[in-house]
Amino acid sequence: MRIGIVAPACPLDLAVAQAVTALSAEHYGPSVELVFHPQCYLNEGHFAGPDAARSDAFVELANDPAIDAIWFARGGYGSNRFTLDALDRLEAPAHDKTYLGYSDMGFLLAGLAARGVGRPAHGPMVSDLKRADGEAAVMRALDWLVTRDARHVEPAARAGRTMAFNMTVLGTLLGTPLEPDFTGVILMLEDVDEMHYRLDRTLFGISANPHVRRCAGLMLGRCAPIPENDRPFGQDEEAIARHWCRTSGIAWLGRADIGHDANNKIVPFPA
Amino acid sequence: MRIGIVAPACPLDLAVAQAVTALSAEHYGPSVELVFHPQCYLNEGHFAGPDAARSDAFVELANDPAIDAIWFARGGYGSNRFTLDALDRLEAPAHDKTYLGYSDMGFLLAGLAARGVGRPAHGPMVSDLKRADGEAAVMRALDWLVTRDARHVEPAARAGRTMAFNMTVLGTLLGTPLEPDFTGVILMLEDVDEMHYRLDRTLFGISANPHVRRCAGLMLGRCAPIPENDRPFGQDEEAIARHWCRTSGIAWLGRADIGHDANNKIVPFPA
Repeated sequence: MRIGIVAPACPLDLAVAQAVTALSAEHYGPSVELVFHPQCYLNEGHFAGPDAARSDAFVELANDPAIDAIWFARGGYGSNRFTLDALDRLEAPAHDKTYLGYSDMGFLLAGLAARGVGRPAHGPMVSDLKRADGEAAVMRALDWLVTRDARHVEPAARAGRTMAFNMTVLGTLLGTPLEPDFTGVILMLEDVDEMHYRLDRTLFGISANPHVRRCAGLMLGRCAPIPENDRPFGQDEEAIARHWCRTSGIAWLGRADIGHDANNKIVPFPA
Repeated sequence: MRIGIVAPACPLDLAVAQAVTALSAEHYGPSVELVFHPQCYLNEGHFAGPDAARSDAFVELANDPAIDAIWFARGGYGSNRFTLDALDRLEAPAHDKTYLGYSDMGFLLAGLAARGVGRPAHGPMVSDLKRADGEAAVMRALDWLVTRDARHVEPAARAGRTMAFNMTVLGTLLGTPLEPDFTGVILMLEDVDEMHYRLDRTLFGISANPHVRRCAGLMLGRCAPIPENDRPFGQDEEAIARHWCRTSGIAWLGRADIGHDANNKIVPFPA
């Protein structure tokens, strides 16, 4: 199995790539090959290379029939800057692949889902190795790509039709051509480094959207860490999510086992 | 003339209300009366009182035929939490009023414009008195409400059909029932305390929206202060706005004289 790795947002550390390559060799030997695109290590301003380089690298690996899956290297910010361009250039081999990542990669996952391309899935990335207990996150993602073992999958996602997003990313892409069809889907949302008032504001925009209201319900992932505002909000993130579910009529379905941490489980999007 | 003042987001300082009342008396004597709703001074968590209290105060003053204009006390966060409820309760007298504010008040200005209620305008609020040179901002707003003197109005807004918003607020309300019709409108956007990557992300969402693309063009207000990210973005806010105008086909119309500062000019929405 050959897994292609690109960095649609910020660059990957070479040392992380080497360590994850060693982990893969240790667990799977030569049967699994991690193909790191050289674009992963480019550096231009905020990004892992110019928009065109990131788009080209993604399109090259997605269209390569010898690559079985795309595993995103790292989040940060920037995949939205080329996703629409890249989607227009995807060919038949791109439809046969799984695409795994989260956070900023939600722009790509959403766009792929909107176009019905491949099997997008929300889950750990290569750079999660740097987290506390990061090896568990990386091996969960890699082993799921290799074995599809259901124990790596978020419990509610084992049974139902699910999508998962960073809520700030989802809030940004609603109303753009990246917006997927939420009809009948359980929507799992997580975030990181956003103050409570921002989570509240973002969930207002998401829950007031009539397309989102077609979903089967909302589950809240982890949102930690949440910076303190100079004006304490007075409600925690679960109270906020429950408030907007009540207000919008979207079913509150409880907590989801996803987030910007090593416990982040896999959420495959509907086939 | 009677000007009603409510605080749809965060509470107003009584001392600021007293100082602005004194300014009004000094300039206009008894011909102008500032009616501060007691709700302005409520305090509950992040907000100037519970959602229902803020909604009721706004609706009460908006529906009062003896009030000529609504001047919002202060931004912060929270008007979105009751705007839809309040809009449903507005009656005939609400249509005869001007509504002046900015920042978080963009949710209300947008909703009023979406429903065709009254004359929303983007401009300084009571609490701007606390800014450096804040008296100029407050007197600009008050004098515009009283005299409609065109020198208080943003130059491009004197001639054209214009709307102005905080870009984070606009990005949040797109795709919700608060979204106004942008057809043929010059859209002015400002922001405050958002890192460059966030401005870039928000402008992606705004410029990729097909409804926004009906606008006549975009003008960028001030975005200061812009916090430094640990990863420098490599482009300033004007380069970012020009990028998304190029990408989206929205006309780039240059800079607008609005922002979170004492120079913030008035932008009346289309009649």
